[in-house]
Amino acid sequence: MKELTDRIKKNGRVLADGVLKVDEFVTHQVDPVLMEATGKRFAEVFADQKITKVVTIEASGIAPAVYAAQALGVPMIFARKSKSLTMNEELLTASVYSFTKQVTSTISISRKFLSDDDRVLLIDDFLANGQAAKGLIELCQQAGAEVAGIGILIEKSFQDGRQLLEDMDISVVSLARIASLNDGKVAFLEEDA
Amino acid sequence: MKELTDRIKKNGRVLADGVLKVDEFVTHQVDPVLMEATGKRFAEVFADQKITKVVTIEASGIAPAVYAAQALGVPMIFARKSKSLTMNEELLTASVYSFTKQVTSTISISRKFLSDDDRVLLIDDFLANGQAAKGLIELCQQAGAEVAGIGILIEKSFQDGRQLLEDMDISVVSLARIASLNDGKVAFLEEDA
Repeated sequence: MKELTDRIKKNGRVLADGVLKVDEFVTHQVDPVLMEATGKRFAEVFADQKITKVVTIEASGIAPAVYAAQALGVPMIFARKSKSLTMNEELLTASVYSFTKQVTSTISISRKFLSDDDRVLLIDDFLANGQAAKGLIELCQQAGAEVAGIGILIEKSFQDGRQLLEDMDISVVSLARIASLNDGKVAFLEEDA
Repeated sequence: MKELTDRIKKNGRVLADGVLKVDEFVTHQVDPVLMEATGKRFAEVFADQKITKVVTIEASGIAPAVYAAQALGVPMIFARKSKSLTMNEELLTASVYSFTKQVTSTISISRKFLSDDDRVLLIDDFLANGQAAKGLIELCQQAGAEVAGIGILIEKSFQDGRQLLEDMDISVVSLARIASLNDGKVAFLEEDA
């Protein structure tokens, strides 16, 4: 998606450790116009998928997810993140390991908001090794809901998240696909959505 | 705001301890259409205030804030919450005490996103005792930014948050004002926005 890749070129910053910071327009300060454009793009791509719910994870996924949900005419749900969580029969829960932070957190969604009638579009800001996405898929599976696809703003295509999801037969649509972040520079893959 | 008070009557739940749960449409599952309507309403009310940034706090404030920012044509910033945070000169930080959770957390915004040129509209989902709002105001003050007002979805008017903010000369606009939550029932104040 040209608006997004252009914005990454303009305002993305590659830190010394190969991290891509997009806190100017996605992860801390948020550009509503760009987020609406990404949400509408996801809605277009998954228009035929009979989506009933958009699901994301707090906090950076919320803005693109709410616009996607609006364009699809369905509710949005954001999974909660917490360090630890006692088991609770009213919650769907999954463990997510973060390689960057080297910490396991629990994500959860109230059981009442997802059922086996639901077809879910997952939305997240980043796809790297796919652990957060895998956790969201587990929550949907616990509810018996079908994951119709996943929409990602920025995919680090040099990590194995996409492969992990495709191996689970999940359709992955990324609006910007990054081939490498070497020498402080962002190189994009040609194909994106 | 009639759409919001109607929705609270329909889907809000008063728990035994006097807590109002709106997880059906604000704090967990989110209704994009209602959130857009609230954002647009805030933008109308503060249209003459030359707002340059909308600031909220993760996670439930993000949806109404991003729509308000879009309607005002400005960026949105969400403050980060964390249990503890080492001092960092690149961050504006404030402590927020939660009476309900009885825990103090640190909220922060990157210094680079707020300056003394900014006129800020604060947005949050709830106003109870005003501690979160007070923390957000402190972040703005540290940056030298002016707080032009605060827009709240649901005000618990039987708690002292509004008074605290008005004593600081902050203009408070709440779209639903709750007089009481006694006996499991929501009673609204007549005047709201």
